[in-house]
Amino acid sequence: MTEQNRPLDVVILAAGQGTRMKSALPKVLHRVAGRPMVSWAVKAARELGAREIVVVTGHGAERVEQELAGSGVRFARQEQQLGTGHAFLQGAAALGSHGDADILVLYGDTPLLRTDTLAALIADHRQEASAFTILSGELEDATGYGRIIRGAAGGVERIVEQKDATPEEAAVREFNSGVYVMDARAFGLAQRITNENRAGEYYLTDLLGLYRSEGAKAAAFKLDDADEVLGANDRLGLAELERIVQRRINEAHMRAGVSIPAPETVFIEDTVQLGRDVVIEPGVILRGQTRVADGVTLGAYSVVTDSVLAERVVVKAHSVLEGAAVGAGADVGPFARLRPGTDLGEGVHIGNFVETKNARLDAGVKAGHLTYLGDVSIGAESNIGAGTIVANFDGVNKHPSRLGAGVFVGSNSTIIAPRVVGDAAFIAAGSAVHDDVPEGAMAIARGKQRNLDGWSRRYWGGLRAKVQVKLPWLAGWLERQENQTADRQA
Amino acid sequence: MTEQNRPLDVVILAAGQGTRMKSALPKVLHRVAGRPMVSWAVKAARELGAREIVVVTGHGAERVEQELAGSGVRFARQEQQLGTGHAFLQGAAALGSHGDADILVLYGDTPLLRTDTLAALIADHRQEASAFTILSGELEDATGYGRIIRGAAGGVERIVEQKDATPEEAAVREFNSGVYVMDARAFGLAQRITNENRAGEYYLTDLLGLYRSEGAKAAAFKLDDADEVLGANDRLGLAELERIVQRRINEAHMRAGVSIPAPETVFIEDTVQLGRDVVIEPGVILRGQTRVADGVTLGAYSVVTDSVLAERVVVKAHSVLEGAAVGAGADVGPFARLRPGTDLGEGVHIGNFVETKNARLDAGVKAGHLTYLGDVSIGAESNIGAGTIVANFDGVNKHPSRLGAGVFVGSNSTIIAPRVVGDAAFIAAGSAVHDDVPEGAMAIARGKQRNLDGWSRRYWGGLRAKVQVKLPWLAGWLERQENQTADRQA
Amino acid sequence: MTEQNRPLDVVILAAGQGTRMKSALPKVLHRVAGRPMVSWAVKAARELGAREIVVVTGHGAERVEQELAGSGVRFARQEQQLGTGHAFLQGAAALGSHGDADILVLYGDTPLLRTDTLAALIADHRQEASAFTILSGELEDATGYGRIIRGAAGGVERIVEQKDATPEEAAVREFNSGVYVMDARAFGLAQRITNENRAGEYYLTDLLGLYRSEGAKAAAFKLDDADEVLGANDRLGLAELERIVQRRINEAHMRAGVSIPAPETVFIEDTVQLGRDVVIEPGVILRGQTRVADGVTLGAYSVVTDSVLAERVVVKAHSVLEGAAVGAGADVGPFARLRPGTDLGEGVHIGNFVETKNARLDAGVKAGHLTYLGDVSIGAESNIGAGTIVANFDGVNKHPSRLGAGVFVGSNSTIIAPRVVGDAAFIAAGSAVHDDVPEGAMAIARGKQRNLDGWSRRYWGGLRAKVQVKLPWLAGWLERQENQTADRQA
Repeated sequence: MTEQNRPLDVVILAAGQGTRMKSALPKVLHRVAGRPMVSWAVKAARELGAREIVVVTGHGAERVEQELAGSGVRFARQEQQLGTGHAFLQGAAALGSHGDADILVLYGDTPLLRTDTLAALIADHRQEASAFTILSGELEDATGYGRIIRGAAGGVERIVEQKDATPEEAAVREFNSGVYVMDARAFGLAQRITNENRAGEYYLTDLLGLYRSEGAKAAAFKLDDADEVLGANDRLGLAELERIVQRRINEAHMRAGVSIPAPETVFIEDTVQLGRDVVIEPGVILRGQTRVADGVTLGAYSVVTDSVLAERVVVKAHSVLEGAAVGAGADVGPFARLRPGTDLGEGVHIGNFVETKNARLDAGVKAGHLTYLGDVSIGAESNIGAGTIVANFDGVNKHPSRLGAGVFVGSNSTIIAPRVVGDAAFIAAGSAVHDDVPEGAMAIARGKQRNLDGWSRRYWGGLRAKVQVKLPWLAGWLERQENQTADRQA
Repeated sequence: MTEQNRPLDVVILAAGQGTRMKSALPKVLHRVAGRPMVSWAVKAARELGAREIVVVTGHGAERVEQELAGSGVRFARQEQQLGTGHAFLQGAAALGSHGDADILVLYGDTPLLRTDTLAALIADHRQEASAFTILSGELEDATGYGRIIRGAAGGVERIVEQKDATPEEAAVREFNSGVYVMDARAFGLAQRITNENRAGEYYLTDLLGLYRSEGAKAAAFKLDDADEVLGANDRLGLAELERIVQRRINEAHMRAGVSIPAPETVFIEDTVQLGRDVVIEPGVILRGQTRVADGVTLGAYSVVTDSVLAERVVVKAHSVLEGAAVGAGADVGPFARLRPGTDLGEGVHIGNFVETKNARLDAGVKAGHLTYLGDVSIGAESNIGAGTIVANFDGVNKHPSRLGAGVFVGSNSTIIAPRVVGDAAFIAAGSAVHDDVPEGAMAIARGKQRNLDGWSRRYWGGLRAKVQVKLPWLAGWLERQENQTADRQA
Repeated sequence: MTEQNRPLDVVILAAGQGTRMKSALPKVLHRVAGRPMVSWAVKAARELGAREIVVVTGHGAERVEQELAGSGVRFARQEQQLGTGHAFLQGAAALGSHGDADILVLYGDTPLLRTDTLAALIADHRQEASAFTILSGELEDATGYGRIIRGAAGGVERIVEQKDATPEEAAVREFNSGVYVMDARAFGLAQRITNENRAGEYYLTDLLGLYRSEGAKAAAFKLDDADEVLGANDRLGLAELERIVQRRINEAHMRAGVSIPAPETVFIEDTVQLGRDVVIEPGVILRGQTRVADGVTLGAYSVVTDSVLAERVVVKAHSVLEGAAVGAGADVGPFARLRPGTDLGEGVHIGNFVETKNARLDAGVKAGHLTYLGDVSIGAESNIGAGTIVANFDGVNKHPSRLGAGVFVGSNSTIIAPRVVGDAAFIAAGSAVHDDVPEGAMAIARGKQRNLDGWSRRYWGGLRAKVQVKLPWLAGWLERQENQTADRQA
């Protein structure tokens, strides 16, 4: 087995409480760009082709393990928080002593670390035949971090913690990120870490000295961008991570041909795919498994989750989509709400204050205003009038309805499920459709109109009092009506 | 009476016009974080336990006095704007000559000054047995401000205005904020301020010299954060104050355990209370006496005013709440509008395009779509169908309605107030309910359905012309219908 | 003809592809502040009073020419992109050889250049009797730009490109923007530009040397703000231009008396006019020919396009207006949608989830909830109940309706166009109005109500299963109902 294809095992330290988060949630479950911080480390480990991934849990262990259930990782519990060295040992024990792998140590609270960076760290580790390689970074002022102290030949000699640093050491700009890759000796050497220090903790950093005492080669691989190892200790830190990751995501999309005129106001999760010449107006939020094809416009303040938008779709301002598929050239909104199971054909028009759920609309269907379409399929080119409700719930169960092609549904109609309406049927406005409608038929299901003259003295009187200031002519007219009504009633 | 419990009187100078605001509104009534600038000074004075507060008004005096009516302050009018010394004298006259108090001078256009800072200023003034203590600050470049000139022993000797400063004086970084605390001699000394200067104005700053000419001790207390004494002269300045105060508020909430992933887009007034593990998505605006319990999620672009949200409430994107109470675990929105008098029980569900006003909904009520609930109470676990309107207005008066528990209201129904609907009643979809409905009854109030075959040659013809391009098969079918109809009519 | 009133011809170079835009759209058609970049140059040329404007097109020429059709410019095609010198020659040829004009060279991708700046450049050119004047700027670090090399007397000698610059030349901070104004000799001199350089391109910059070889005077006019000549090569650059122009626009409005507490979240196109004491809440977007009078409030996240708002209008949060006129003191929203042809009188009230289109509402009309008003006129002080639909479409054509003054439309009514409803008519809630309604009459067009006791064993049974956990008392009641119904049916 050559160095280059040695297996890689990953230990993710995720046991910390994060007291300053002031949260019932364990620190590593706080979210950045839509997913828990710890899952970013798991994702990176996966992308590196890790053979085994062990997550060391502690505070809120059950919740962390529940969150990561099904992700294929193993868990090691650190029951007492005795330091990173101790945490690593729990993780290493869970790995088993394969003895043939490189071991990468990651953290559950540094979500910005790129897989590419880690891959370069590992490649460097192997190329340099290093036994213990530190991921380091460089800052103008590294106060607070452990500093990397290099020897005359440039090799890594020691890590000096802030509190122990001499003035010269404190001036060193290269810092220890805490991420290490190391050979299999780490299992044995980590057993020798002691807690004989002021804090009484086991520090994983001590591994460096142990490796060097064995005469093994230690190295440090320097990050291009020190931001990658930023962690979050409180919610301000979280917000800062969020800001960085959002800028990173938005800039990548812009470079690839997406227009985002106000990128500071746009939030896109890293799972989202965007085509070329997509235009994203201010305030748009894109989440989950959303896929957006070329030439789509996403209107201001729209929130789109787990939806698939085909070419040239126009989502107008203030629309909320979730679990919807929208066909090429369709337009949606403003104020549209597409819910899961919505499947819109080409050129469909969904207007304002329209909700769809579990609704398949074939090409060219129009539903422009104040409509609820639930559990329904509608054939091509049908027109759904303003105020239409497909009443899918009878108080106990939900039922499906089916409307044919070329159907016209008049305004303020109610289609009471389960209902079948044939092709080219016409439903008169204001109808409550409780029977099926055959192909080509007109259904009328509303009351007949009666007009009653000067019907209510009380009404006119009340109204007159209200309008006389604003509309004296109307008040006069109302007074006459009132008198006439009184005469008639007399 | 010891120094420590001397009374404190406060004079707030608020007479300036603020020409550069370009506004019909007096300068001090422009708002920062939701309230007029002058009211921030009044609030600070109150929090300091001031015995008397006098606000000196001038430009737009009526409007300022009207805005502060009921806040317990007294007003002094400065009819002519002759300078800060003159303004102070008007205020001092309104205070009366108690002779036993410290006097604090504040301004109506510096809303960022923290009460804690003022308390520290006053404490320092008393501890140092100072007669006249200036609140000073330090800036890299204090150009434009008066500079604090200290003697060899560090005591304050003079204030030099920008235009009179020598190069050495101009290099001084400590500046005069214009906020002073002083002993009761200020009443007498201020009378001796003259306007014998180039501008012909009475400067309050001259008090320093007058105190010193009496042999009294003068001191300066330095601010930690010079931003606190920032004022606004134009709307750009206002926006800058707003930015600082919003950052201050958001950071305090984040430190206390609120998640705000995009704090630059979130606006929270300082009157709002937030619990732990509240999540605030981008673009949320929280105003007034809003109180939010632990674990609440506030969806993107929601605007919440004067509302009380219990544990685990979920407000989905694009909701607008005002004067509403929302019970634990309820969910609201997206696109919900809760208006004053809304009182939602535990686990209530309010969906999209739903408006409530003066509406009490007991636990578990669901109103999911396109509904208006006005002046109504609804018993537990009732289901309000899509498109339901509780018609509370008869054109003259508004009337209340009452729905029992376990009621099912079918879609597109109208409940015409005043109406009583008993427990477990069932209203058929599309009904206009104009009589009360007894417990357990089903009400049907809609027309019967008729289906008319091939009803209108004109309709088919018109439709055919429109669909033949897109749906040739439908056009063919329509042509046959048209012919059949023609045959029948023949 | 004096120098001061020489005609001005403008050549706008707009042929570049903009590969890094990664777009199907030619670079110069990408938008900044709502309009294509090239149209900013055309606008500036117009405002300078240019006699002729020639736009040199190349990549995507048809689309660029189509976008500018009707703007009064002429086009020259640069079929091959052989350099700026070559592009200029195509443009100059299209101008004709007037010989009497100054020629200004602008670019299709520098939208931030102010007309005032260009006017000053031209004035300087003429006053200095210069033959060739460069618009230059100054940057701390001008890396990447050509540098302006001046002689001992301060005159412009050469432009040195980055790659040819000596260290001293590279340290020069004055750079060439590429914008030039020149006398009519440019026509002839440009013919002598060669492509004998490493890139094999014709550089317009070479004109400087050619002018100087004629002994003509060359000068450079320095920009105050180097940002004005920023161009965009990719979408990040576009976003940066957008940010600058939005800040510029917002600051100008704030200086003129508009309150914008969160200017980073507000987007206003430069065509929009705003009165004094307008308040613009976070997230507002104003586009096109929008005109807003004094004292208007624009609520958070509203999007207003091509609309005219009179004094004291209040647009509440989350409203979308397009092509609407709103009368003094009217209030609109939240969640209102006004579409083209909307014309609202004084004091009109439009509430939530209300859409208007081609609708004239006279003074004092109220439409508060869940309503669609299309192709309709409504007289003063009428009240439109919640859920009202004016059904303007019969499936083939749209029809207008007319409602008088003082009309009351009950909730959930449908007005089926074309319909005329007289003054002071009253439409009962839930009516589908298919006949006209005379003045003062009440129209009722709905079904009569029947109440059926204990109507359905199946319903009670299903409901009981659902409620027994949450509402045991109701479950018991339902069980009794179920039994009674069974008894009756037996």
